[in-house]
Amino acid sequence: MSNTLRVTVWGENVHDNNNATVKAIYPQGMHSCIAAFLNQAGGIKARTAVLQDHEHGLTDEVLDNTDVLTWWGHCAHGQVSDAVVDRIQRRVLAGMGLIVLHSGHHSKIFKRLMGHNCDLTWREAGEKERLWVVNPAHPICAGLPATNFEIEHEEMYGEPFGIPNPDELVFVSWFQGGEVFRSGATWRRGAGKVFYFRPGHETYPTYHQPLVQQVIINGVRWARPDGAFAWGCPNIKPEMAREKVTVWGGSVH
Amino acid sequence: MSNTLRVTVWGENVHDNNNATVKAIYPQGMHSCIAAFLNQAGGIKARTAVLQDHEHGLTDEVLDNTDVLTWWGHCAHGQVSDAVVDRIQRRVLAGMGLIVLHSGHHSKIFKRLMGHNCDLTWREAGEKERLWVVNPAHPICAGLPATNFEIEHEEMYGEPFGIPNPDELVFVSWFQGGEVFRSGATWRRGAGKVFYFRPGHETYPTYHQPLVQQVIINGVRWARPDGAFAWGCPNIKPEMAREKVTVWGGSVH
Amino acid sequence: MSNTLRVTVWGENVHDNNNATVKAIYPQGMHSCIAAFLNQAGGIKARTAVLQDHEHGLTDEVLDNTDVLTWWGHCAHGQVSDAVVDRIQRRVLAGMGLIVLHSGHHSKIFKRLMGHNCDLTWREAGEKERLWVVNPAHPICAGLPATNFEIEHEEMYGEPFGIPNPDELVFVSWFQGGEVFRSGATWRRGAGKVFYFRPGHETYPTYHQPLVQQVIINGVRWARPDGAFAWGCPNIKPEMAREKVTVWGGSVH
Amino acid sequence: MSNTLRVTVWGENVHDNNNATVKAIYPQGMHSCIAAFLNQAGGIKARTAVLQDHEHGLTDEVLDNTDVLTWWGHCAHGQVSDAVVDRIQRRVLAGMGLIVLHSGHHSKIFKRLMGHNCDLTWREAGEKERLWVVNPAHPICAGLPATNFEIEHEEMYGEPFGIPNPDELVFVSWFQGGEVFRSGATWRRGAGKVFYFRPGHETYPTYHQPLVQQVIINGVRWARPDGAFAWGCPNIKPEMAREKVTVWGGSVH
Repeated sequence: MSNTLRVTVWGENVHDNNNATVKAIYPQGMHSCIAAFLNQAGGIKARTAVLQDHEHGLTDEVLDNTDVLTWWGHCAHGQVSDAVVDRIQRRVLAGMGLIVLHSGHHSKIFKRLMGHNCDLTWREAGEKERLWVVNPAHPICAGLPATNFEIEHEEMYGEPFGIPNPDELVFVSWFQGGEVFRSGATWRRGAGKVFYFRPGHETYPTYHQPLVQQVIINGVRWARPDGAFAWGCPNIKPEMAREKVTVWGGSVH
Repeated sequence: MSNTLRVTVWGENVHDNNNATVKAIYPQGMHSCIAAFLNQAGGIKARTAVLQDHEHGLTDEVLDNTDVLTWWGHCAHGQVSDAVVDRIQRRVLAGMGLIVLHSGHHSKIFKRLMGHNCDLTWREAGEKERLWVVNPAHPICAGLPATNFEIEHEEMYGEPFGIPNPDELVFVSWFQGGEVFRSGATWRRGAGKVFYFRPGHETYPTYHQPLVQQVIINGVRWARPDGAFAWGCPNIKPEMAREKVTVWGGSVH
Repeated sequence: MSNTLRVTVWGENVHDNNNATVKAIYPQGMHSCIAAFLNQAGGIKARTAVLQDHEHGLTDEVLDNTDVLTWWGHCAHGQVSDAVVDRIQRRVLAGMGLIVLHSGHHSKIFKRLMGHNCDLTWREAGEKERLWVVNPAHPICAGLPATNFEIEHEEMYGEPFGIPNPDELVFVSWFQGGEVFRSGATWRRGAGKVFYFRPGHETYPTYHQPLVQQVIINGVRWARPDGAFAWGCPNIKPEMAREKVTVWGGSVH
Repeated sequence: MSNTLRVTVWGENVHDNNNATVKAIYPQGMHSCIAAFLNQAGGIKARTAVLQDHEHGLTDEVLDNTDVLTWWGHCAHGQVSDAVVDRIQRRVLAGMGLIVLHSGHHSKIFKRLMGHNCDLTWREAGEKERLWVVNPAHPICAGLPATNFEIEHEEMYGEPFGIPNPDELVFVSWFQGGEVFRSGATWRRGAGKVFYFRPGHETYPTYHQPLVQQVIINGVRWARPDGAFAWGCPNIKPEMAREKVTVWGGSVH
């Protein structure tokens, strides 16, 4: 953890290259757009990593220098190596923050940390989404309008959302087509903090919108590690107990 | 789900066969002891399955007929096939109850559902454990003394315990050697309910104690499916939306 | 707690008498309508009590024979005596279930148990409300359509809703006018269970709708006491400690 | 909210004056001791207020200039005016942080915010307490030993503790006499954050201990308002709805 918040913005980087609509909206890729607005926010140094990089760009060396990781993926979740997922999970439990965006709900790392399928319903119709703040004064809402903001064109995600009960629910979305969704939620996992934020379908210019950018900027700041913890399963030998114990019975060790 | 609660008691069944102390305490194996007291409780039909069975005894056919699964393992967690773990997770999310006992804290299925490492500290000294009820009137405490009960000889498990914040904390243990532990906790995962209960080291006669048996009986009753839910990720087409939507923008589908 | 679930349906009974629209919809009062469908559900014996009764109909004798209390009030919250509120709170902490309906969000007893102002935004326009199930297989959803149901004409309640983070979120509502609301939520308070359910504005025929009735029936069944607990602040004298302690230092007692 | 954290340390200030043991340990009163170590921590400006002051020293003007309030009381909870309790509750819901210490568990303001009786068991024997960290890397644990610390002489508080399930459990205490207690816990209430911290019996020198001071310093820093929210119950008129609504049905307004 440094004074400057070190963020690694991870992008799947597939539709960014093979879909004309997405390329038109994000000419340098979605990850570059996200890194750019984070770098302009103040106090944040963001770099990018993509699926196609060696070890998906998430080597131990990179993660050693990452306070918060953001994750966007959609069509290639299965191509992410389990070894890298294991590594990210260990880092989160030890303190690294994680921001999971939109279709990252079905990423291996999010499903791993939730212990759940993270299923939902969806519709790609470019309809209106209105995000309501249910947790006023949460740091993730800093600088937003008091109670709600709109995204004119978004994909719909609907309940039921297959997640454990969030530690904190921050946003609930209203969709034009009639659904609702818990679109901003947080969970503590070990020493690390996780924030899921729903908007960000790749065929709409969502990450160019200032209020969406504000939420992601707030999210990475909120997810800054408070500290670290080195997990393990230490044997506290009888002679090391804080109070006297006398060994009784058999052993399997 | 039937009127009689159908429980499958899973046992690792390794120390039960190769450790003289364990064999003396549980001549038919720990799983048989657990199934026996469940079968005497009333309204419960328990059968057993072990690691060494085909598919660890947890075929689709068995799970189709299981309302609640109990899990005890210790030294062979790594021998449980990932395919069976996937299957159990799907069943829990769809409604099956799961009771994880003692060293099952490090089982693949518990770590999977928690999204955590489930680490803790430990000491095998046969010391005194006193379990305090922190959630009076929780159904898992039915028939217990009002505020606490003791186990004369147990292994110590100490905090920090690497789990997500429980939905409900039921018991906290005091150990003679100076530690504390969240020894009874519940989580909802999808349509299913999960209860972790700490006691049960194999070299001590813990599962022969009536109050420990009562907690496990209460636990399986509490974990009875309330209902079921078939998860999935359905596409709600624009023409199927509950309110009128007009498609806008590009698509990746 | 008896085998038959004993429910007391409390009604404010003011608009029921002085507003022609309400009288037309609920000729015997809203409380009578609620008690009637509960009495037809099976296994439930419901009676009514109203603000105008002696001690609001909630004497110790009545509460001694109440497993679950339902509460509807709107314009006369301030007329409920604090002594009765104290009494209900004590009963809930000791195990009695409580179902708070609609405008009961601002009742003294709900604000007392939540520790919050229970504020919200509102609009009386008879617009469409669609309740989405976010907690599939929760017992309060038994018998409902799998994911949502509609009320054609309802008052709107909007977020932010001034409540503590629910233990379980069951329903989230979509409103035609653009808002969302956490319309079904549960909290444990001591030995008792509390369920808030949003629908039920008195100028619309909401409590005549079968699915709304089903939720309330499910709610009272869910809130049945699991047990009871007699709270207090007992002094455990040094000589009564479970482990030996030697008194040290001064005293203020 | 200012850059310097403005803390008001409230003390009951009764035993501080009439009990020789307490006077010897805290010659200027417990509140003065607490304010003193907060003022030495850096970035904090603490002042004191006591029961005997006009409006208990908690006028609107004082609270307008308070980011975080700490509360210690024991024998005179009933002398705190309800109007001041109402005022503090409103301030917490609007964003002010609150740290409740030791016997403050039975204060009006804590019971008000919890919605609970906050009962517990107790023993004044000057026994050993060991606090275990169950939430590693929580900001309230910054600078503490990794897993636990001890207080040589303390009053015992035992479970069950009559509180709602904490949002975050930070510490669990082990007591020499055999009990356990959830001795550090947090709750969000509206825009404000609440931290309960158990140690601090007035006849022992607890608040002179550096690690106890560190927890309280961490607590007030953690409780710094993230923002503020002006609650209320605004009527969103039909013509102000974000989506078109057509008024239907009768009204009670």
